[in-house]
Amino acid sequence: MSTGKACVLVEPNRIETWEVPIVDPEAGGALVRIVAGGVCGSDVHIADGGAGVMPFPIILGHEGVGRVEKLGPGVSTDYAGETVKVGDLVYWAPIALCHRCHSCTVLDETPCENSQFFEHAEKPNWGSYADYAWLPNGLAFFKLPEGASVEAVISLGCALPTALRGFDRCGPVRLGETVVVQGAGPVGLAAILVAAQMGAREVIAIDMHDSRLAVAKSLGATATVSLKSSPEERRRQIYELCGANGPNVVVEAAGVLPAFPEGVSLAGNHGRYIILGLWGAIGEQPISPRDLTTKNLTIAGATFPKPKHYHQALHLAARLQNDVPLADLVTHRFGIEGAVAALEATKAGEVIKAIIDPEKS
Amino acid sequence: MSTGKACVLVEPNRIETWEVPIVDPEAGGALVRIVAGGVCGSDVHIADGGAGVMPFPIILGHEGVGRVEKLGPGVSTDYAGETVKVGDLVYWAPIALCHRCHSCTVLDETPCENSQFFEHAEKPNWGSYADYAWLPNGLAFFKLPEGASVEAVISLGCALPTALRGFDRCGPVRLGETVVVQGAGPVGLAAILVAAQMGAREVIAIDMHDSRLAVAKSLGATATVSLKSSPEERRRQIYELCGANGPNVVVEAAGVLPAFPEGVSLAGNHGRYIILGLWGAIGEQPISPRDLTTKNLTIAGATFPKPKHYHQALHLAARLQNDVPLADLVTHRFGIEGAVAALEATKAGEVIKAIIDPEKS
Amino acid sequence: MSTGKACVLVEPNRIETWEVPIVDPEAGGALVRIVAGGVCGSDVHIADGGAGVMPFPIILGHEGVGRVEKLGPGVSTDYAGETVKVGDLVYWAPIALCHRCHSCTVLDETPCENSQFFEHAEKPNWGSYADYAWLPNGLAFFKLPEGASVEAVISLGCALPTALRGFDRCGPVRLGETVVVQGAGPVGLAAILVAAQMGAREVIAIDMHDSRLAVAKSLGATATVSLKSSPEERRRQIYELCGANGPNVVVEAAGVLPAFPEGVSLAGNHGRYIILGLWGAIGEQPISPRDLTTKNLTIAGATFPKPKHYHQALHLAARLQNDVPLADLVTHRFGIEGAVAALEATKAGEVIKAIIDPEKS
Amino acid sequence: MSTGKACVLVEPNRIETWEVPIVDPEAGGALVRIVAGGVCGSDVHIADGGAGVMPFPIILGHEGVGRVEKLGPGVSTDYAGETVKVGDLVYWAPIALCHRCHSCTVLDETPCENSQFFEHAEKPNWGSYADYAWLPNGLAFFKLPEGASVEAVISLGCALPTALRGFDRCGPVRLGETVVVQGAGPVGLAAILVAAQMGAREVIAIDMHDSRLAVAKSLGATATVSLKSSPEERRRQIYELCGANGPNVVVEAAGVLPAFPEGVSLAGNHGRYIILGLWGAIGEQPISPRDLTTKNLTIAGATFPKPKHYHQALHLAARLQNDVPLADLVTHRFGIEGAVAALEATKAGEVIKAIIDPEKS
Repeated sequence: MSTGKACVLVEPNRIETWEVPIVDPEAGGALVRIVAGGVCGSDVHIADGGAGVMPFPIILGHEGVGRVEKLGPGVSTDYAGETVKVGDLVYWAPIALCHRCHSCTVLDETPCENSQFFEHAEKPNWGSYADYAWLPNGLAFFKLPEGASVEAVISLGCALPTALRGFDRCGPVRLGETVVVQGAGPVGLAAILVAAQMGAREVIAIDMHDSRLAVAKSLGATATVSLKSSPEERRRQIYELCGANGPNVVVEAAGVLPAFPEGVSLAGNHGRYIILGLWGAIGEQPISPRDLTTKNLTIAGATFPKPKHYHQALHLAARLQNDVPLADLVTHRFGIEGAVAALEATKAGEVIKAIIDPEKS
Repeated sequence: MSTGKACVLVEPNRIETWEVPIVDPEAGGALVRIVAGGVCGSDVHIADGGAGVMPFPIILGHEGVGRVEKLGPGVSTDYAGETVKVGDLVYWAPIALCHRCHSCTVLDETPCENSQFFEHAEKPNWGSYADYAWLPNGLAFFKLPEGASVEAVISLGCALPTALRGFDRCGPVRLGETVVVQGAGPVGLAAILVAAQMGAREVIAIDMHDSRLAVAKSLGATATVSLKSSPEERRRQIYELCGANGPNVVVEAAGVLPAFPEGVSLAGNHGRYIILGLWGAIGEQPISPRDLTTKNLTIAGATFPKPKHYHQALHLAARLQNDVPLADLVTHRFGIEGAVAALEATKAGEVIKAIIDPEKS
Repeated sequence: MSTGKACVLVEPNRIETWEVPIVDPEAGGALVRIVAGGVCGSDVHIADGGAGVMPFPIILGHEGVGRVEKLGPGVSTDYAGETVKVGDLVYWAPIALCHRCHSCTVLDETPCENSQFFEHAEKPNWGSYADYAWLPNGLAFFKLPEGASVEAVISLGCALPTALRGFDRCGPVRLGETVVVQGAGPVGLAAILVAAQMGAREVIAIDMHDSRLAVAKSLGATATVSLKSSPEERRRQIYELCGANGPNVVVEAAGVLPAFPEGVSLAGNHGRYIILGLWGAIGEQPISPRDLTTKNLTIAGATFPKPKHYHQALHLAARLQNDVPLADLVTHRFGIEGAVAALEATKAGEVIKAIIDPEKS
Repeated sequence: MSTGKACVLVEPNRIETWEVPIVDPEAGGALVRIVAGGVCGSDVHIADGGAGVMPFPIILGHEGVGRVEKLGPGVSTDYAGETVKVGDLVYWAPIALCHRCHSCTVLDETPCENSQFFEHAEKPNWGSYADYAWLPNGLAFFKLPEGASVEAVISLGCALPTALRGFDRCGPVRLGETVVVQGAGPVGLAAILVAAQMGAREVIAIDMHDSRLAVAKSLGATATVSLKSSPEERRRQIYELCGANGPNVVVEAAGVLPAFPEGVSLAGNHGRYIILGLWGAIGEQPISPRDLTTKNLTIAGATFPKPKHYHQALHLAARLQNDVPLADLVTHRFGIEGAVAALEATKAGEVIKAIIDPEKS
């Protein structure tokens, strides 16, 4: 039996490179050779144990582009009904929906109550920091459109489907609206890109780092506000750009608790505040509930993209790759054995996007 | 020049009965003889100064049903285009929209930026604790449908348009949803009535007072939960009725700050929390912003009904008056000179709904 | 190997009763003993060949309530996540979604491009005119709530999920709207029930048969209009009830082509015309496209309920069974060998709802 | 009393230049000196009597940009609440809403039942083929943003608010959708511009004239299809670009009856067909109502923009004027006495957009 390399998180803060068997796909599934495994900010938290207990040991990586090595019995199309064959490049949603829980069937909503994020490293495995990913039956994968750039597709990772999901659930940006995005990490950058493409009049990025704000501009931000300025100054700049009514939409993509009350306060009359980043931030923040009535404000959160958001993300990235410097976001590339370095560089904020490239030694 | 009586709030905590001139209606307006002036909970706060500075002296009362005494030049219909003539009973929205501010024209939203809630008592005046109300041009009034009960129409006062507005802006109750309403005062009762009529599967009222909960049941609540029980017990009862996914909709109609974090917590997965009552409650409350993402939760507030919501309220009350004991909500009736007593009874919670009846001495 | 009886459509107009093997459920599936198989109007068209070529021979029946005889490996809940065990009564959606075509994954829409309505009679089979139905993996079934009446649940058959689906896709009835339903067959009756429950002010049924109009009233129609009167008279009656603006919603549930231009014409300003019944009616009808602009009219069609609509239908029927005489709609009951008679009675319009009851000889 | 020139349609096909008095604005109104009066295709039909009986004689022109000459008593802002003063450039919606009919108040919808499109030429008048326009109280006007190009603002005339209104009522284009626009006259060009700005993946223009298709491309069309090709060939090209599911949105902006059945047929599964142009086309067209159910199709029409759509159009044009060659659409410029020539050139299709420039002799 042949084997491939995989980056295994044996337990928090203990990463090893294992040789794992290459397993034939099951009926309905596929085996792909990884071309790029995206390093996500949440991988850092998974690796250091901050994201909670996992079914250790696990193979890291939930973002990936790969080349079909073998298709499982019965598989002739991807999950969008497109013909797929060995050798095609595919992109996938990392969670297979069960289609038989209350959320899946009754609500048509994610997260699925039976979803499984990670699999034990000794079992056939879809972790993407590896030579191969074994995509189980039910895990939606999609063929890259012809000419799509792997880097463009992976550049924003799961942040792009997350932003698309957020606007899907909480209401899209309407033509001519003003949008403020708190945080210019991957989720914020994705929200900026999407808001700009939806026809926002202003897309204002807030971040601490000038380098990130420069990237925000390359993706469509019309203005930037430094988190180094005072809250009052931030508000002044934003209201000057948006007008006295204030921003129509504020997107929380900072992932830190103090962003929340500031966002509630910044959101304009009849506005929407969309919470995308506070998924992992445990704690309370005081807000004035009266802001909701006096401003006719809506605050809405969203989590867990559906497979369709991955499909949309794939096609959006491929469509924009020549107009927007998406591929340039991939600033660092590591081999499987470089995973620890990749995570450290991501944690340190040195990278915009790092990927695991199994061909890199 | 003939005069009529009016209840004037000269300054906070100083109410007098004045004789004020009866003024012919302006072009576009109408003069009506008051049949019932609704005593609203916010009148109590206005009268004691808690609602802020007003253009004192003012004539109290923003809820009213009256009989057309004289129509202004050019007026032959109400604001729904129905023919109107002297002697018809009419109901009105107490705020005239300017139709030329950013909110009115660009956003199609209330509140209007130039809206005027009260008028100086020495000017022609639409306050409803009076013998006559002078409805200015632009203040929308609607003819009562034939056979409509004045008591049924006034019974929930501005709370019914407020609830209709809330569900309009924040999303209606969908057939089969589960709804929790915090507070069984007028706004809560109105939300219960509307949610039941929209086809909710469960409408659960929470209140401190058993008498209010009994009224809630008469308007359509399917279950009640006492605020005297512990928060844990309240949650248990609610989740037992709604199922493990939790309530689809929670409506805040309690108007007290601690209701807010409890509502955020009670709202179920993929649920909505609609804030109607916290209009006047100044202060902050801590919540966990992570609840928004992990529950795909939407929190939305609404304020200031539009004229159309008064029209809907009028027709809803008239349609239901034989099936739902709306008229019975009017438990107390005072003359104009009894306004102080009416406000005290309302403040003390003795009444469900009090009205000012100018014919009562 | 034991066998059960099944009503097999060998070819158009040739129905036989076969003894077919009782097969153990596959992983993810279930075997149920049929309690009631609903006779749907479309069964008549399937049986006479009017609905097109099928994979003959097939076992008839796509509506069913049954009792769990055996659960497939891995099955411990229904598709709403409720615990299920042998002996429980269940209701199901007759089409298993593939969850890997463009419609399923990218659009979140039905019909699924790989859906299979009928199975060859010699294979394990979910046709409901039979002693047993073998529900394959992926075919959503739902446990009846405690105390649910089998007759109430089956009474409107797939017409109830069809109506719920229609209002879901094309917009629900809003509180206080006026609704006209063309046709008081099962789909029309279901639309009437749903519109009434959603809080319509008027629900006006149009049909040729007074007996059907009487049933319409029992389900919530507020008025009826006979198709025997002239189109002008029908319009006059409807506009008298709805007002000069005309009905807010017209629902096509007649399934005959001439209903279409009449519905376009009847729909009021800013109204919606929802097409549910013209699924099978091949042919063209002339309309004035200018009606769309001058009336701000929306015409929307919908087909193929999702599993969630079956779940909603089940729970709606169970909830209403004591308030609305749903069970009384089941006017005829036939054994499996009586299927031809059941279809003839349905075709002749003698029945409101016929069911196949395998225990009836 | 001073006078100004105005182009008067005395009766169908009889146009004269009159000297009319310059009248001070009424309270709430404004007097503006016309800078550009847009020549709309419907002006051609009004001038030849095809648009029906008007209150002749009338001053032509419902599209205009002008400079404030005098503000009526009480006016200090435009209808968006922006400060306005003599000398400011303004753009206006040509119909004053009454705010007291059923459509205005109860439905929040246009058209207003009391709207007045034209005024008798001997009365103060807001026709824009003139030196001055007298904007009555209630007719919404908006200040041009600083630096806005008059040509860019007037270039698409009332077609741009019409397209914005259409997408507002019938649903906006969602990011990544495929859009087909039938007709590349002003309404079609406006729909193309808006669809492109909303993030459509494909915007496919259909027209007879290659020159119009070239303009369509300059505004954002991604592909064009000639009406000279056969219907089958048009369909083939469109489905090749949009994929097998077909276009998500088809917009009818051709204004000719045969476009309607072709649009119904072209619209893809789960698609929308938005009717903007068939406002004036009297007659019937046969369609297959079954297309609505089998495709889950929605067909929706819209007419009469609200003032907010004029505000949106103004700001959209001003925002895009440097990126999209809007001003270049103004290909012809005539003096007031050249109105007949302007209408003839418009009718002949020689112009993309003609304007009346009172300064031109």
